[in-house]
Amino acid sequence: MSAANQIPQFACVAGDVRLGPRVRLSPFVNLYGCAIGEDTRLGAFVEVQRDATVGRRCKISSHTFICSGVLIEDEVFIGHGVVFINDRNPRATRADGAPQDEGDWRIERTVVRRGASIGSGCVILCGIEIGARAMVGAGAVVTRDVPPGAVVAGNPARVRRSMAADGGATPDDGGSNAD
Amino acid sequence: MSAANQIPQFACVAGDVRLGPRVRLSPFVNLYGCAIGEDTRLGAFVEVQRDATVGRRCKISSHTFICSGVLIEDEVFIGHGVVFINDRNPRATRADGAPQDEGDWRIERTVVRRGASIGSGCVILCGIEIGARAMVGAGAVVTRDVPPGAVVAGNPARVRRSMAADGGATPDDGGSNAD
Amino acid sequence: MSAANQIPQFACVAGDVRLGPRVRLSPFVNLYGCAIGEDTRLGAFVEVQRDATVGRRCKISSHTFICSGVLIEDEVFIGHGVVFINDRNPRATRADGAPQDEGDWRIERTVVRRGASIGSGCVILCGIEIGARAMVGAGAVVTRDVPPGAVVAGNPARVRRSMAADGGATPDDGGSNAD
Repeated sequence: MSAANQIPQFACVAGDVRLGPRVRLSPFVNLYGCAIGEDTRLGAFVEVQRDATVGRRCKISSHTFICSGVLIEDEVFIGHGVVFINDRNPRATRADGAPQDEGDWRIERTVVRRGASIGSGCVILCGIEIGARAMVGAGAVVTRDVPPGAVVAGNPARVRRSMAADGGATPDDGGSNAD
Repeated sequence: MSAANQIPQFACVAGDVRLGPRVRLSPFVNLYGCAIGEDTRLGAFVEVQRDATVGRRCKISSHTFICSGVLIEDEVFIGHGVVFINDRNPRATRADGAPQDEGDWRIERTVVRRGASIGSGCVILCGIEIGARAMVGAGAVVTRDVPPGAVVAGNPARVRRSMAADGGATPDDGGSNAD
Repeated sequence: MSAANQIPQFACVAGDVRLGPRVRLSPFVNLYGCAIGEDTRLGAFVEVQRDATVGRRCKISSHTFICSGVLIEDEVFIGHGVVFINDRNPRATRADGAPQDEGDWRIERTVVRRGASIGSGCVILCGIEIGARAMVGAGAVVTRDVPPGAVVAGNPARVRRSMAADGGATPDDGGSNAD
């Protein structure tokens, strides 16, 4: 489903990845089994796993990891070095010492609603919903749902205020932009 | 010591790396001078430095950095974007302004004991021991030893409780799984 | 401006990058439109964006992201997985839903002064100045200026003390070294 001219140098894009029109990929991406919506841009060193979905007109910045079970709606900004999680109790092996495999653990899904922004360096625990146009401040560790339009920050993240209706300036949040 | 068929696309695995049987590497790994035990899996964008050792049946997730002087025992889970440290007082240059070189600083060793789990996005300071089956919650900054079976979280990490003997559910910890 | 023999395997170094003499690059770097001063070393999985400047004799560790608008002076140490930010209010799209482009947002510049050290896993908000020989502890989220010689840590980062004049040992800070 991806046009050959969408694949940059040093990129691993598995044959089962669905890339929408005008998706822009950076070098050093690692994508498999996922869907990326039209006009979305992915930075370098981004991994998107199987059964993750990224919407349209999103920006996913460098060094970010989007795991299985994550749904990102349209027009979402995700900063650099953001990590999603899908396993509340991760272990390398089963109780009998054999390496864990699919079936040995249960995915908990996370949803990032339309127009939300997640600042750089955030960690998003599993089973979370981040509401529409919410803003997660850089470096936050998000352990519970974020209401629509809320601004959260800290470890663990707490609500600091709600966004002005005009989506105006929000000090001390932040991600990065350019390219 | 590594079989050619263990090396994926776009991977740097130096000739002095010791890979055990059935080690599974992802694309974009950067390994040199280290040893990886049998049946261990390494995610994309993982770097393991010289004189680091990873045990058997471990899972080291994407974007994680394991530095010189770190010993990871068997059956350890390490989440995505975890960073280890080995220098308490890092500087780019010596007092005379010349770039630091080996010999200008002292490695402080860190040990992660058997069966421990380190959640995604953690930073592990140097000279630390993380006890057997301990669980480090996602996004924690670990500045001191973690007792065996303890659950820690936060910046700096504090003990929240001890694991049930059955290793049961532990809310708000987390890493990611799949592949 | 870069000598062919400075480019390692699996590296993207755009034609407009200015590399000083004896710059050492690791595999999997992604550099474009930036300048890197002489004798500086860059780790694997490092991205440096357009209009970022890194001084001489610096060490930039693996998995670190340096964005447009960041100026790093000489002899600075930057740990692993450090993220800089240049946009206080990042959004994927403009109010009309079209993807944001240059001109839709304003870069806020950050400066790291000579001889400073930033520990691994830090997030540096935008519009910040980190003073000469300051030390930012690993895992800190820096939301305001750091005075010269100060030691800061935490989320948000707070001043813990000032460096001894001799730049002596500073517990619980840290980055990593080797190679």
